[in-house]
Amino acid sequence: MSKKVVLAYSGGLDTSVCIPLLKEKYGYDKVITVSVDVGQPPQEVQEAEQKAKKISDGHYTIDAKEEFVKDYIFPLIKANGDYEGYVMGTSVARPLIARKVVEIADKEGAVALAHGCTGKGNDQLRFEAVFRLTDLDVVAPMRDMNLTREWEIDYARKHGIPVAATSAKPWSVDENIWSRSIEGGRLEDPGFIPPEEIYQWTVSPANAPEAQTIVIGFEKGVPVSLDGKKMGGVELINKLNKIAGSHGVGRTDMIEDRVLGLKARENYEHPAATVLLAAHKDLEKLVLSRAELKFKKIVDEQWSELAYSGLVDEPLYHDLNAFINKTQERVTGAVTVKLYKGSVTILARSSPCALYSEDMVSFDSAILNQKDAEGYAKYHGFQARLYKKVVEK
Amino acid sequence: MSKKVVLAYSGGLDTSVCIPLLKEKYGYDKVITVSVDVGQPPQEVQEAEQKAKKISDGHYTIDAKEEFVKDYIFPLIKANGDYEGYVMGTSVARPLIARKVVEIADKEGAVALAHGCTGKGNDQLRFEAVFRLTDLDVVAPMRDMNLTREWEIDYARKHGIPVAATSAKPWSVDENIWSRSIEGGRLEDPGFIPPEEIYQWTVSPANAPEAQTIVIGFEKGVPVSLDGKKMGGVELINKLNKIAGSHGVGRTDMIEDRVLGLKARENYEHPAATVLLAAHKDLEKLVLSRAELKFKKIVDEQWSELAYSGLVDEPLYHDLNAFINKTQERVTGAVTVKLYKGSVTILARSSPCALYSEDMVSFDSAILNQKDAEGYAKYHGFQARLYKKVVEK
Amino acid sequence: MSKKVVLAYSGGLDTSVCIPLLKEKYGYDKVITVSVDVGQPPQEVQEAEQKAKKISDGHYTIDAKEEFVKDYIFPLIKANGDYEGYVMGTSVARPLIARKVVEIADKEGAVALAHGCTGKGNDQLRFEAVFRLTDLDVVAPMRDMNLTREWEIDYARKHGIPVAATSAKPWSVDENIWSRSIEGGRLEDPGFIPPEEIYQWTVSPANAPEAQTIVIGFEKGVPVSLDGKKMGGVELINKLNKIAGSHGVGRTDMIEDRVLGLKARENYEHPAATVLLAAHKDLEKLVLSRAELKFKKIVDEQWSELAYSGLVDEPLYHDLNAFINKTQERVTGAVTVKLYKGSVTILARSSPCALYSEDMVSFDSAILNQKDAEGYAKYHGFQARLYKKVVEK
Amino acid sequence: MSKKVVLAYSGGLDTSVCIPLLKEKYGYDKVITVSVDVGQPPQEVQEAEQKAKKISDGHYTIDAKEEFVKDYIFPLIKANGDYEGYVMGTSVARPLIARKVVEIADKEGAVALAHGCTGKGNDQLRFEAVFRLTDLDVVAPMRDMNLTREWEIDYARKHGIPVAATSAKPWSVDENIWSRSIEGGRLEDPGFIPPEEIYQWTVSPANAPEAQTIVIGFEKGVPVSLDGKKMGGVELINKLNKIAGSHGVGRTDMIEDRVLGLKARENYEHPAATVLLAAHKDLEKLVLSRAELKFKKIVDEQWSELAYSGLVDEPLYHDLNAFINKTQERVTGAVTVKLYKGSVTILARSSPCALYSEDMVSFDSAILNQKDAEGYAKYHGFQARLYKKVVEK
Repeated sequence: MSKKVVLAYSGGLDTSVCIPLLKEKYGYDKVITVSVDVGQPPQEVQEAEQKAKKISDGHYTIDAKEEFVKDYIFPLIKANGDYEGYVMGTSVARPLIARKVVEIADKEGAVALAHGCTGKGNDQLRFEAVFRLTDLDVVAPMRDMNLTREWEIDYARKHGIPVAATSAKPWSVDENIWSRSIEGGRLEDPGFIPPEEIYQWTVSPANAPEAQTIVIGFEKGVPVSLDGKKMGGVELINKLNKIAGSHGVGRTDMIEDRVLGLKARENYEHPAATVLLAAHKDLEKLVLSRAELKFKKIVDEQWSELAYSGLVDEPLYHDLNAFINKTQERVTGAVTVKLYKGSVTILARSSPCALYSEDMVSFDSAILNQKDAEGYAKYHGFQARLYKKVVEK
Repeated sequence: MSKKVVLAYSGGLDTSVCIPLLKEKYGYDKVITVSVDVGQPPQEVQEAEQKAKKISDGHYTIDAKEEFVKDYIFPLIKANGDYEGYVMGTSVARPLIARKVVEIADKEGAVALAHGCTGKGNDQLRFEAVFRLTDLDVVAPMRDMNLTREWEIDYARKHGIPVAATSAKPWSVDENIWSRSIEGGRLEDPGFIPPEEIYQWTVSPANAPEAQTIVIGFEKGVPVSLDGKKMGGVELINKLNKIAGSHGVGRTDMIEDRVLGLKARENYEHPAATVLLAAHKDLEKLVLSRAELKFKKIVDEQWSELAYSGLVDEPLYHDLNAFINKTQERVTGAVTVKLYKGSVTILARSSPCALYSEDMVSFDSAILNQKDAEGYAKYHGFQARLYKKVVEK
Repeated sequence: MSKKVVLAYSGGLDTSVCIPLLKEKYGYDKVITVSVDVGQPPQEVQEAEQKAKKISDGHYTIDAKEEFVKDYIFPLIKANGDYEGYVMGTSVARPLIARKVVEIADKEGAVALAHGCTGKGNDQLRFEAVFRLTDLDVVAPMRDMNLTREWEIDYARKHGIPVAATSAKPWSVDENIWSRSIEGGRLEDPGFIPPEEIYQWTVSPANAPEAQTIVIGFEKGVPVSLDGKKMGGVELINKLNKIAGSHGVGRTDMIEDRVLGLKARENYEHPAATVLLAAHKDLEKLVLSRAELKFKKIVDEQWSELAYSGLVDEPLYHDLNAFINKTQERVTGAVTVKLYKGSVTILARSSPCALYSEDMVSFDSAILNQKDAEGYAKYHGFQARLYKKVVEK
Repeated sequence: MSKKVVLAYSGGLDTSVCIPLLKEKYGYDKVITVSVDVGQPPQEVQEAEQKAKKISDGHYTIDAKEEFVKDYIFPLIKANGDYEGYVMGTSVARPLIARKVVEIADKEGAVALAHGCTGKGNDQLRFEAVFRLTDLDVVAPMRDMNLTREWEIDYARKHGIPVAATSAKPWSVDENIWSRSIEGGRLEDPGFIPPEEIYQWTVSPANAPEAQTIVIGFEKGVPVSLDGKKMGGVELINKLNKIAGSHGVGRTDMIEDRVLGLKARENYEHPAATVLLAAHKDLEKLVLSRAELKFKKIVDEQWSELAYSGLVDEPLYHDLNAFINKTQERVTGAVTVKLYKGSVTILARSSPCALYSEDMVSFDSAILNQKDAEGYAKYHGFQARLYKKVVEK
């Protein structure tokens, strides 16, 4: 019986080189490749498929865009997902890709799972957090073998793997429908000012047009309409990426702490994400109580740490979602946002579940009289007064 | 012996009306007024002084700008002070004003302290958190008497208090060197889009000039230079307010939860604050460890809640500052920031205390080999695997 | 039409005196009294009823023991309810009592709700957090009138209210099925050693018999059996109060921070609670993941603060319960506990959902080899090494 | 020049076997052994020294008891050190031992550091968190070689290492002045009830004498006297271990999550620790404000996690200590504690820095009137009322 391995396949040099390596160095008979479409550029998905058909022993292209938005991006929006300021993109796509690889391995009766990540980053951990839930072997040739780019190109040519004629790219890029990351090369110097060319989804703010005002509609924490027009999540995010990107909105330049403990300088683009997260947070302030807002910040922080680490099978992840979903039952309404030359400005918001409105202000005035606050004031900071007496002794 | 009361005096209608009220309704013999200059417009301070000299029994104008920046704003920067997204300004000035009033009361041998706040907002609580540390009486005529503006104007005229000829202002404004707040009137409707006229410190982004790049220097968490030129805190903040304001940077429009529990729609301007806080946070990511960044977020959150509530005499406030100051010992370095039509973009950063640099990346590669990460990966998400076995049973 | 008020009635002097006061001083026509049985001594409930029938205009006795255990105590166990070390009892009963009063007010068409709490403690806040959810008037005669005990006795006699012949009690007691609190009198001195006589549910450890070992069975976080015998919550708690109380288990002597900010010395008895909470926590350590245990501590803390304050209608309370209930799905199993002369010792535990067992240890050994930990160790404390290099510069 | 390695040496079979292994398998010329006395049984320290003198190339015995108490135990008391209920002992001793080994390596000009831990537990991580701060090699023969006990005994005999004649011990024990841990063997079954024989420091509660009342004096968070007699930390802890141990006080039986993610069943004895931690927490409730108590719980939790992991060089550890030390300035006073047959009961407490006293209660009554609480009550739970209106819509 054949010894099959299923490989998460992007079509790039690293994962392409893995195909012959998995046979020659690891002794597998067949390498099945899987490319998961989570919104990367269509030609990238197609090229991967064409390449795979030449060099692998079977290939699957899986369109997971709807699933990605519904089961990974929407929970992220509800959780105001943010890790140290990082608008997570790659990190939430990895578990989905890994799960698809596992599904194919089941179907194919494979004995092993493989990825092409190195031993330096987060992605190896995210893939394996899912892979190691199975009893299959886990193989990571790039991490094991510590290869140079030159060696890889040479090895690829010998094995008939097409190598792009272009010279080495100056930085490493990862894309999905929600976010685009750029890292490596000269960007590793935290003092290096990134050139405009690293950005593909966002125009330079200087080239952006006049201000544009848009309205985002939310239902139970999830965006459902743009300027009053209902639409599905994939369509809405794609549209908003175009609109906000055309205004230069959605760039991040940051120092980030990776799971293993190394810091790294990272650059990101995420136009739709910037707008949706800003609008969602604003709407929450209108409908959630002060106590909810304060505690949800802690919950969101913990959710983000798990999501960043790819730990979506940790039971705590489900517990946190139970909390978050309960809060989001009321996060319904509309937020008006202005986009202009790189900035997002919240202009107005409304909700049928608002805990604040002009009516309520009048209502409060009717049942409360100002004198009531005097009693409150007498207790505000009360223990500081006792403390002062102790200190003065 | 005379029964003196000391009143925190702004020169506005409310606090002016308090002067005769404190005598007629509360029975004090003498009303001493105190105006504290924390960076509000100079003419406002002067007018208050001139007015007071006519109608009070003694007046003090205290220039507390340096003290405000050093003892209230700088700690706020170190703590990344932020309450629900609110760049605190009024809230950190109130305790300082209250303390100055108490000092004058000591000097004058007064028997009572007074403020002109109503019973609806936060300021009454912030004033009284300081006032009630003493054994003096605390008087709040506006809160007690629930007066209308018409009654006040009438009463003022009868008592020879100059009343500005201008019609009622459409909104209520408070200013100090760090922030300007605008609230009330039609802004109370969370769905009302604020007109440009509410903003005084920031130009409309549409009218802002070409992009400008500036460099902020920090020492131990505190800004000390602009574009390489050392300067004191008051000068630096004033300069930066001008520069960033000219780029339309530093506006906030938000729903805020007041201490008493009512939500309110608030608008703010704070150009220097926006830039300094963004730069400070960015620098922290370069020099603090991941564990520090994560925990300091919790500390900063708690600090901000105390500062928002005016509880700077609560012993916890001092404990938190001990933590924060320890972390800030290494927050030294420079951050390069681009200002452009309402947006602030971090471009680069450097620090002698960086936990990340190109050198370090090379150093890490020398002592770590990629294979080491495999061991780590095997333990990443380990308990999720045990959990899966339980769930599958 | 008659102006009715409904009063939460305990049968004690304070609430009895309220009955004529509500008519004479507050102008109500009829006072309806409600006693809610949450497990206080049966004769107390009966006496309240008999007394009420003489002096009120209608009385309800409501047996809410089952509801109290199911909807208030069980959630508390799931949340490991603990406020500063206080095993909450009174605090979780108050909202239930207040809700019953509101139900009767609805039924009776009353215009007001009343309680007999003073203005010093927590109970006024807990009652009113529920009362003020309605549009009815809220009346608190004891707080308003600042009465002395002598005045009350005198007034009671004049109005034909039976007054217990016994002299003033040396301390104030509150009881329900879950806990008994004792406070006031000489106990107010934190340095006063409480005499044995304050305890009624627990024998002095010195008089307790030989050690007894019992087994508590849990299902989804809730105790369901004692020594293998299934039983309802009320029966289980009553039995366990007897058993553990006979071993002197379940006393607390503490300094507690009340909601308003005053500290107070409090003494409590809660034999069943002590055993059930210790067993529940132990079982959680067997079945919840490390990440869950760590984060649930934060959730439990917040839950307890809301419960202590009587804020069970705050939306956050429901959000937290959603989290907690999700975690408790697996908290099923049995815990063996030894009771002996005041101490509770966990001896053993087991669960079908355990994340730890001898089998698992063997399983782990099979898939992990010791060498893997070396890679982990190289990253453990990694940033401290970078920090050391910075500090040494 | 000779290639020296310095080994943390306990005198047991594992570390003894390491000596020849470090030469034969790892190629070092000389093995220097270091035994650090942190309060383990004196004969254990002596035997290690005698053994080492026979088989190592140089041995150091370092009495670090005073340092251990002052720099590791006292900070732990201030932080109410507790990891999932574990009274940390081994975990706080490891960094000290590792630091002493590094000091000797400096002095001896060694090129490597070694420990005898396996790859399953926490201690390897704690040792290496310190070892890897240096540039020396780190060697862990036990983890590398995965040896059986039989192999080790055989190898030891061949190399003239004395092997205790006694048969294999049924469990593994670690001791220092603060705590004694027992694990392994049949204890690995969480449902196995531990036999009395595992306990050495505590008598069975059944054999304990009559109750004894003692008074612990604290200064700035640190215990300084017993029953009014001042004494140093080492003496105080030794005395209290005897006294409390004679009352059967200080046993823990728990399921614990190790750093790597495996759960383990652990048993501990720590009589002095149990008493001192209970007394310290009680005193804190008397002197710290409510806000401090609540936030310090979070700080203590984080401190404990770092300490459990041996991460005392992580900069956050120092930041947390800055917070904690600030709070402890007022933690001065005396706590009266009753010890009886396994239980510790707090009876009374007093402090010159108390935020609560009978006097203060009277003082409060003078400045507050009960009516003030009505205003407070009107705002208590205010947003829940707004929420109710939303829900009812």
